[in-house]
Amino acid sequence: MKSLQSRRCIVLGAGGFLGRNLCLRLAGRTGHLRAFGRHVTAPTVLEGLDWYSGDLNDPASIADAIRGFHVVFHLINTTTPASANRDKAADVRSNVIGTLQLLDACCSEGVEKLIFASSGGTIYGIPPVIPTHEDVACWPITGYGVSKLAIERYLHLYEYMHNLDYRVLRVANPFGPFQTTTKNQGVIGAFIDRILTGLPIEVWGDGTVSRDFTYVDDVVEAFELAALHTGSERVFNIGSGIARSLNEIIDTLAAITGSPISIERRDGRLVDVPISLLDIQRAEQALGWRPRTEFIEGLRRTVNWARTQANSDERFGLVA
Amino acid sequence: MKSLQSRRCIVLGAGGFLGRNLCLRLAGRTGHLRAFGRHVTAPTVLEGLDWYSGDLNDPASIADAIRGFHVVFHLINTTTPASANRDKAADVRSNVIGTLQLLDACCSEGVEKLIFASSGGTIYGIPPVIPTHEDVACWPITGYGVSKLAIERYLHLYEYMHNLDYRVLRVANPFGPFQTTTKNQGVIGAFIDRILTGLPIEVWGDGTVSRDFTYVDDVVEAFELAALHTGSERVFNIGSGIARSLNEIIDTLAAITGSPISIERRDGRLVDVPISLLDIQRAEQALGWRPRTEFIEGLRRTVNWARTQANSDERFGLVA
Repeated sequence: MKSLQSRRCIVLGAGGFLGRNLCLRLAGRTGHLRAFGRHVTAPTVLEGLDWYSGDLNDPASIADAIRGFHVVFHLINTTTPASANRDKAADVRSNVIGTLQLLDACCSEGVEKLIFASSGGTIYGIPPVIPTHEDVACWPITGYGVSKLAIERYLHLYEYMHNLDYRVLRVANPFGPFQTTTKNQGVIGAFIDRILTGLPIEVWGDGTVSRDFTYVDDVVEAFELAALHTGSERVFNIGSGIARSLNEIIDTLAAITGSPISIERRDGRLVDVPISLLDIQRAEQALGWRPRTEFIEGLRRTVNWARTQANSDERFGLVA
Repeated sequence: MKSLQSRRCIVLGAGGFLGRNLCLRLAGRTGHLRAFGRHVTAPTVLEGLDWYSGDLNDPASIADAIRGFHVVFHLINTTTPASANRDKAADVRSNVIGTLQLLDACCSEGVEKLIFASSGGTIYGIPPVIPTHEDVACWPITGYGVSKLAIERYLHLYEYMHNLDYRVLRVANPFGPFQTTTKNQGVIGAFIDRILTGLPIEVWGDGTVSRDFTYVDDVVEAFELAALHTGSERVFNIGSGIARSLNEIIDTLAAITGSPISIERRDGRLVDVPISLLDIQRAEQALGWRPRTEFIEGLRRTVNWARTQANSDERFGLVA
């Protein structure tokens, strides 16, 4: 398959950061595109799409929403690393059991393929090797990572038992337009928000913590390529290939915005591994994907988007 | 620590096959021994022990039961490989979420150490290497294996976040006295039961499927050693070191019982990997453990036990 033009595709979690970007990418490039999210109506940027308002934890709405669709993009996550740690059982109930109900629905509705957004930043725990390839044993140090891992294993099981085709993208720290700043998810979005509103940046630890920040346009391209992939690989790291420290992010943001940046330092957190960097050779070779956006260019676009949103509701409180 | 004589120990799942055997082993060898299970009263063989009737999925009874105890042996499993596959969400709800509630209780009650009975036969899925060592990536092909894996990862997380010390024993196919014959769990117990009652044995596939059958006395010794272990290892394979085919089991049982055995062959099952054999070097080196019971001797003891139980309720319908 060369394109999704003959495929009816549904994006679950379409109201979220990755979901909005993926819908924008796929619009006009599929047989039909449905956006599924918890909002009653589509976010402004997705107006005109087939918006389906529903909840992952309502099996009836999920089954109804995916009926007749060939490809399901599962981007829903009901928790953050911090909230998943606070109540691990609630995390399992909503994310793991919700996904199992989705997989059962995919089997009974005859879905061809499911693409799952996993977490390259948390699934490996303290990485045994840097850059980290997909085949190392995963020992997450957050509840968020454990539930992502459990879902990945259930996907493997559903393919083994029920022939449900799937791909997993272990996405490194994505950043870009539509990243919420209020749910403590993405550090770059939060930094930009505080700079533009003249508030000091909070930095946990000494700022040397390094992450594999990946521009969202590259990430959503990988989702489209994963939907088209027919090879034997199932799990792909999606990252930038380069680890950047928080201090480097701050310096670059200072250069881009021309703003003086004040920093408030906090104690390091137990959930932060010192460095996270994914080995992306498999995605490059098997998906024909590569991160194409220069980091500074991605950062510039994110800042520009945030400036246009300064007086908009879009920037705050996105709900998947 | 050389013994558990100063430690208050509780066995969760004491009414089950492994649980009864572990309680019999530990009786008189701990500071205090409590047996926790769903029966209202202790099974006959455990009469005289401190029996606590409760349910893993009742957080209040769990917290009350473990209060003041130093060591928790977690042997509860509410599903079988077949039932976990039929309803994966129910398996997650009862086993994974139930265990998370137990772990929270262990943290708040100050439990020193938890020993978890994992599944050496299902956690590795189709083994990438035979014998299989603990560090290979686990891709289970049963829901039972996935939920065991998720629990193992949560144990790692709880030690990381909350300093809850733990050991995991990935037990290969255990057999011996008190194995239920009615819950489709242990093939040896089921075979013996049908031979002694004069019924044909059901064999799935051609009988060449091989398993790492381990005598239960050796298994429960490993649980005691794991409770005493102070090294850095956390996950141990517990097996016999030898894979034996179903056909070999049947031949040996024919020799021991002197009974003619009739066989009904059924189609092979998807949940059966062709061979399962664990690498037990880590347990030998770090726990000072080894499987000491000759296979034929273990089988003979199991047959003798089953004969004494021929008219007893003990043999049927054990409930953990």
